[in-house]
Amino acid sequence: MSFLVQKYGGTSVGNPERIRNVANRVAESHKAGHRLVIVVSAMSGVTDSLIKLAKEVNPEATAREVDVLVSTGEQQTIALLAMALHGLGVPAVSLTGAQAGIVTDRIHTKAKILNITPKKVFEHLDSGHVVIVAGFQGQNEDGHITTLGRGGSDLTAIAMAAALKADTCEIYTDVDGVYTADPRIVPNAKKIQEISYDEMLELASLGAKVMQARSVEFAKKFKVKFEVRSSFNHNPGTVIREEHAAMEDVVLRGVSLEKNQAKVTIIGVPDKPGVAAGLFSALAEAGTNVDMIVQNVSQDGTTDLTFTINKDDLTAARKVIEAQVAHTGARSYTAQDGIGKLSVVGIGMRSHTGVAATLFQALAQAGINIQMISTSEIKISVIINESEGPRATQVVHDAFKLGT
Amino acid sequence: MSFLVQKYGGTSVGNPERIRNVANRVAESHKAGHRLVIVVSAMSGVTDSLIKLAKEVNPEATAREVDVLVSTGEQQTIALLAMALHGLGVPAVSLTGAQAGIVTDRIHTKAKILNITPKKVFEHLDSGHVVIVAGFQGQNEDGHITTLGRGGSDLTAIAMAAALKADTCEIYTDVDGVYTADPRIVPNAKKIQEISYDEMLELASLGAKVMQARSVEFAKKFKVKFEVRSSFNHNPGTVIREEHAAMEDVVLRGVSLEKNQAKVTIIGVPDKPGVAAGLFSALAEAGTNVDMIVQNVSQDGTTDLTFTINKDDLTAARKVIEAQVAHTGARSYTAQDGIGKLSVVGIGMRSHTGVAATLFQALAQAGINIQMISTSEIKISVIINESEGPRATQVVHDAFKLGT
Repeated sequence: MSFLVQKYGGTSVGNPERIRNVANRVAESHKAGHRLVIVVSAMSGVTDSLIKLAKEVNPEATAREVDVLVSTGEQQTIALLAMALHGLGVPAVSLTGAQAGIVTDRIHTKAKILNITPKKVFEHLDSGHVVIVAGFQGQNEDGHITTLGRGGSDLTAIAMAAALKADTCEIYTDVDGVYTADPRIVPNAKKIQEISYDEMLELASLGAKVMQARSVEFAKKFKVKFEVRSSFNHNPGTVIREEHAAMEDVVLRGVSLEKNQAKVTIIGVPDKPGVAAGLFSALAEAGTNVDMIVQNVSQDGTTDLTFTINKDDLTAARKVIEAQVAHTGARSYTAQDGIGKLSVVGIGMRSHTGVAATLFQALAQAGINIQMISTSEIKISVIINESEGPRATQVVHDAFKLGT
Repeated sequence: MSFLVQKYGGTSVGNPERIRNVANRVAESHKAGHRLVIVVSAMSGVTDSLIKLAKEVNPEATAREVDVLVSTGEQQTIALLAMALHGLGVPAVSLTGAQAGIVTDRIHTKAKILNITPKKVFEHLDSGHVVIVAGFQGQNEDGHITTLGRGGSDLTAIAMAAALKADTCEIYTDVDGVYTADPRIVPNAKKIQEISYDEMLELASLGAKVMQARSVEFAKKFKVKFEVRSSFNHNPGTVIREEHAAMEDVVLRGVSLEKNQAKVTIIGVPDKPGVAAGLFSALAEAGTNVDMIVQNVSQDGTTDLTFTINKDDLTAARKVIEAQVAHTGARSYTAQDGIGKLSVVGIGMRSHTGVAATLFQALAQAGINIQMISTSEIKISVIINESEGPRATQVVHDAFKLGT
């Protein structure tokens, strides 16, 4: 007998038939004798249509009331799943986030979980029930309903697993797990059996499709082992957990490609303290998320500063940059979209040499030009033309023999 | 400045445009300086579609989970109305039934309100907010979500008005108020300005279209004065309140017609104790609601027993009646549908004589045969052919000069 937290996403519970399908899976686990807490999202589409309703009533709907509104989506799913389980003869009880003891801070629509008091959850578990908890929501210390923002249901599941000291946490979604590369780009990409929290976080595009970074970080902080797997088949998925020695035997875990990037170079920046700080503060205030930053050694008292941002932020960022160029006395700037970021990730890099050399060589042989390079302890990222991204991903995947 | 509880039904908040319309009305009351608690129902159609979802998942959905599910309907409306008020610059906050302190018994889907602890409601009122409360719902003492059953939002409004000691309670709906007769039958029917709780209860078909009996009874018990009026215009409605001396000046308040009745006569019932009790207990167990019962003095040790039921219950009732006829040794029975019940109601009857005479005379002059008669202190009901119901209503309405 294990103590499991299972989470089913919006697609997995998207209609009555799928809810009954999930109920069948939960019933199997229940028959196997497991102690079960099930976290569910709103049925796919429900949250969006509630948001649409809100906008029709008030285009600038207040965050507190958005939370009261959208939290009904998960509340509907918990009730429906409990009914479906009752139909299978499985004792089950549904709890809203508040009822499950999830206490958050006061930041409506993107609240942080402060603590969980799972008294009621344990009571219902002890009386033999499957406990179904509404994901994505909680209440603050004043008793107001809050929601956790994007990926909030995953966070609920992982936080519940931590608070309940469950044996494991299974995140059921519409993908099979985390792959060594995007299978739509690299047909021989393989599912990763086991991956560390840090690798998952650095895998960016591959990981983000499966789970938001904040949930992975939460899991890392509280050492919650979890598995990402599909609710539509019984294949094993990918286990995300603390790293252990054997994990380093693999040089690279995967190859990630982020598209829709833009590259900005500010030319002739006076090389004195505070210039970079001023620029990046101004960009942050404008809501522009800066990714890679590269600055080379200066020549003649000036330097060139290059950074990447999301392509969609470029128009807004131009105004900030132009003001900063004028303000700091830099010579000029260039901006270019249509670039992509390719990253290779693996904690094995720490103990294996030659990863960068292999990467650069593979790209060179394919005639793909590297525009920027940035490295961390377990990741090497290069900026290339977006149009060459898919081919680059394939040749790098091959060079590291990830498909075999 | 008054302290008002206003309730808006499902049709009044049926879509974003109507919610904004309600917000405008509430904003007017707010600008006038009133202290306001607004109770709302689910948007029309929402509860039905949630019930439909439940049935698709499990045709015999459990009552506790039905409550978790359908209570989301009102929760959506409170949030949307708060947003709409914010859009008009009116400070407003939404509260679920549980948050508003509504505590019920444990009977899911038809819970009774046990008490209300309106601490939070008062806090928000004192800080200048319009407080919007979800109708139809509460929580029981174990913290489970409950719903109050049909007409539950009216009940919430009246119970809130009682608990908060509000000055008055306004029930906004899609009808203008209570009329002296159904205006579709009697074109010169007039809106009643003021009516006592008992008259409202006895007016059956006229009152029931406007409000469930349990809400009127609750209002009577706690002496809550309330007004029924339309949310689609600014006409004054009908005030329902404790009776006072001047009310008796009016002989009759109105004429009510109930259709779809059936009449059953059991012939030759042995006139001994326990026979009627056995019959009506058996009918009650079968879920058949018996309305009028008439038994005349017995002849030769037997009597004829006649009663009316809803036409829809007749098929089920026949089996019970046949068994009872055999069991008690009664001679036989007859059953007939296509009958209607016409009632005249008014507390003025107590002090005015000749009401029955005027009623019977009016019907006789119109050639309408009376099949059964039953009287209470403030009501006289007669059973007639259903087909003659509309004409009977008109002639009686005229005879008592209700249209002038």
